[in-house]
Amino acid sequence: MSKEIHIALAGLGTVGTAVVRLLQEECSRYREKLGVPLRLIAILDRSYRRKETSWIDSSVKLTDSLDEFLGAPADIVVELIGGTEPADYIISTNLKRGKAVVTANKLLLAQSARRYFALAREHNAYLGFEAAVAGGIPILRVLRRSLLSDELIRLRGILNGTCNFILSEMAESGRPFQDVLKEAQRRGYAEADPTLDISGRDTTDKLAILALFAFGHFITPDHIPTQGITAISPVDFSFARKFDCAIKLLGVAERIDHDLSLRVSPFLVSEHLTLSAVSGAFNAIEVTGARVGPILLSGKGAGGDPTAVSVAADILNAALWTQGERRFHFQPVLNCRTSDHADDGEGAPETPPLNAKETYPYYIRFFVKDRPGIIAAVASVLARWGINIRSVVQEPWSDPLNLPFVITVEPTRSSIMDKAVAEFRVLDFNRVPPLVLPILEP
Amino acid sequence: MSKEIHIALAGLGTVGTAVVRLLQEECSRYREKLGVPLRLIAILDRSYRRKETSWIDSSVKLTDSLDEFLGAPADIVVELIGGTEPADYIISTNLKRGKAVVTANKLLLAQSARRYFALAREHNAYLGFEAAVAGGIPILRVLRRSLLSDELIRLRGILNGTCNFILSEMAESGRPFQDVLKEAQRRGYAEADPTLDISGRDTTDKLAILALFAFGHFITPDHIPTQGITAISPVDFSFARKFDCAIKLLGVAERIDHDLSLRVSPFLVSEHLTLSAVSGAFNAIEVTGARVGPILLSGKGAGGDPTAVSVAADILNAALWTQGERRFHFQPVLNCRTSDHADDGEGAPETPPLNAKETYPYYIRFFVKDRPGIIAAVASVLARWGINIRSVVQEPWSDPLNLPFVITVEPTRSSIMDKAVAEFRVLDFNRVPPLVLPILEP
Repeated sequence: MSKEIHIALAGLGTVGTAVVRLLQEECSRYREKLGVPLRLIAILDRSYRRKETSWIDSSVKLTDSLDEFLGAPADIVVELIGGTEPADYIISTNLKRGKAVVTANKLLLAQSARRYFALAREHNAYLGFEAAVAGGIPILRVLRRSLLSDELIRLRGILNGTCNFILSEMAESGRPFQDVLKEAQRRGYAEADPTLDISGRDTTDKLAILALFAFGHFITPDHIPTQGITAISPVDFSFARKFDCAIKLLGVAERIDHDLSLRVSPFLVSEHLTLSAVSGAFNAIEVTGARVGPILLSGKGAGGDPTAVSVAADILNAALWTQGERRFHFQPVLNCRTSDHADDGEGAPETPPLNAKETYPYYIRFFVKDRPGIIAAVASVLARWGINIRSVVQEPWSDPLNLPFVITVEPTRSSIMDKAVAEFRVLDFNRVPPLVLPILEP
Repeated sequence: MSKEIHIALAGLGTVGTAVVRLLQEECSRYREKLGVPLRLIAILDRSYRRKETSWIDSSVKLTDSLDEFLGAPADIVVELIGGTEPADYIISTNLKRGKAVVTANKLLLAQSARRYFALAREHNAYLGFEAAVAGGIPILRVLRRSLLSDELIRLRGILNGTCNFILSEMAESGRPFQDVLKEAQRRGYAEADPTLDISGRDTTDKLAILALFAFGHFITPDHIPTQGITAISPVDFSFARKFDCAIKLLGVAERIDHDLSLRVSPFLVSEHLTLSAVSGAFNAIEVTGARVGPILLSGKGAGGDPTAVSVAADILNAALWTQGERRFHFQPVLNCRTSDHADDGEGAPETPPLNAKETYPYYIRFFVKDRPGIIAAVASVLARWGINIRSVVQEPWSDPLNLPFVITVEPTRSSIMDKAVAEFRVLDFNRVPPLVLPILEP
């Protein structure tokens, strides 16, 4: 039997607590599976004194002191505090010590992956982060280890369970956004401050991480065009159904020649695409390789237990790593195609111009104060930008002062669409800014 | 730059040819991703002289001599011949030499996994076999590396593209089995001799391999109850639709307490389950963990290119392994729960009694020569075995000499069902043996 491997864990929140429970419950099975005994030796939580911790093995040192935590003789350090500090300090310090570090911190990974990878390479450290994206779905290991052999073309994902729950509920019940958001908060599917989720920003951070492993480019999340779900109205679901579509918040990354297109937005998704059927708090990711074709992974994207399973998988893989060769862990990390995958700690080619070739059919929904000439005005903007109308849908509606209608257009460059939309927004008959959603078709 | 890694490949069939093309096309990208140059040095194919091979790099030694092939100084040996010999000899010999071996041979893996793992452990060799199950879907790596941390409960899969194509076509067109089989053969979706596929045996071999990695038990495929798709009639699809179900050939493995239930059969699958929507030549596998919940993976399960991507992923992971520590490759291979995961080369606990607690609702379809008392006779058999009827469906039908009707029953132990079915089979009004299909519901 090998030497015991010591684990220190920071952050006794929902995920941290689930990981500690999992390690305690599965401890003996993990020893059988790996041939290596694991032991949790220390937990950092700044308010552990106010939490119920009697279920935690008495041999585990509980502390609220960062210094004491960093002084624990751990082989594997698990960061589950979230946010930036002291999470970043814990990760960076332990990578510099050549330790195995496991984190679920998507914010830090989206911002600092380049720096962390450089530290890990320089100090022969291990960094596991499967749980940072899509909770229990092992998409990062699939990208890093299994699809390494193909050239990836596209990745599309439902990456935020809160938004998918809200959109599924709105579609089913016909209730407005604010109502459903309040219910999601009551049921624990949305935070008290839901901004990160409903603004799309959480999806953007995850998409940046996925794009890194799919395409080998470090993308700054701020550079990804992002539209949240707050402007979606019950009427949009009725219109979407007329087009045999669902509405889903997606992160999409696509390579077209040398261009990379990235976008986070609610999409109209054709019912012929599997993603349209992924409902409630589930996540799903479809990744398409030039040779392997489309592969879909779906599962629970959040929650303590599913995320804990991913964290624990990283701990087990890190435990194997502590027993073996350190040098090659960071070699197969990026599925990149250009030749400047250098040894200088940068590790990935420069980002290409984003979205230069991005093209979608679009759904454009107006709420207007009705008067003659509205469709003519909209149509003439589209004509001026060379955009082809696919359909115009106007339904009988009780309120002529707030009348919805929809125009869909044939595939159009997003840069052209942006210009037409800027012109739409200043038309004087709008009651609210027009809603513009890209459409995904088979 | 590290030393070149040499690859020798046996078998220039569909998959072998796709792997050689992939290695040639992606060679320089693989070098960038791994920091290790790969070189194909030898190909064994007994009829290479009758094949078009001018596209293969002239530096590759083509041979039809097994001895010459085994003498090539390869670091990684790829076995894509299929069948038993000389495939088994190539795998065994190279494991004994401590080489990295990659194979897509599901038949050999299902039969000989225990022996191969023992050889790999004894000789510090590497064995990659992702492509043996479900072509391009990286299910084995997900089971071995990502779900290692959870306790798995259940695995269900559409594992044979040929059968899924035939069943999808029958459902859509209403045409009989033999017609659609012929079309599948014409279109290259079915072999000239389709027995392995349509008998369910191919699915059984794959299920045995999946069950090994999900539950840690070596299962002899012969011990898995297996029913093929040949007895399914167009009328079954009409009945299934009345129950809001599709018909899919599934491999199912489930753990109930300490019992393991395994079965390969066409199932009625509720339309509320995602598996019901997986059509055509696609494969899909749903694996459920106690904590992570259900995870679904779907993609192309066969074909040269998708399978070649999995083979090449194993080659890349083997290449990394040749650079690093050999000792721990076979440690995390089994997701088993008992403690006799020993060092004696056996590596997994004994198989528990199979299917002792297996329970399903069932669909039972009769074709009968109509006369009074038939339903009474069937119902009294069910009553004698304590089986509850859920519904009886008989449709208007033109031919009273060959009348179909269906009985569905509430969840029943499969061992009890088998006994009732044995009694059904001897009833004198049957025109064909009754078709008994288990039903999957949410």
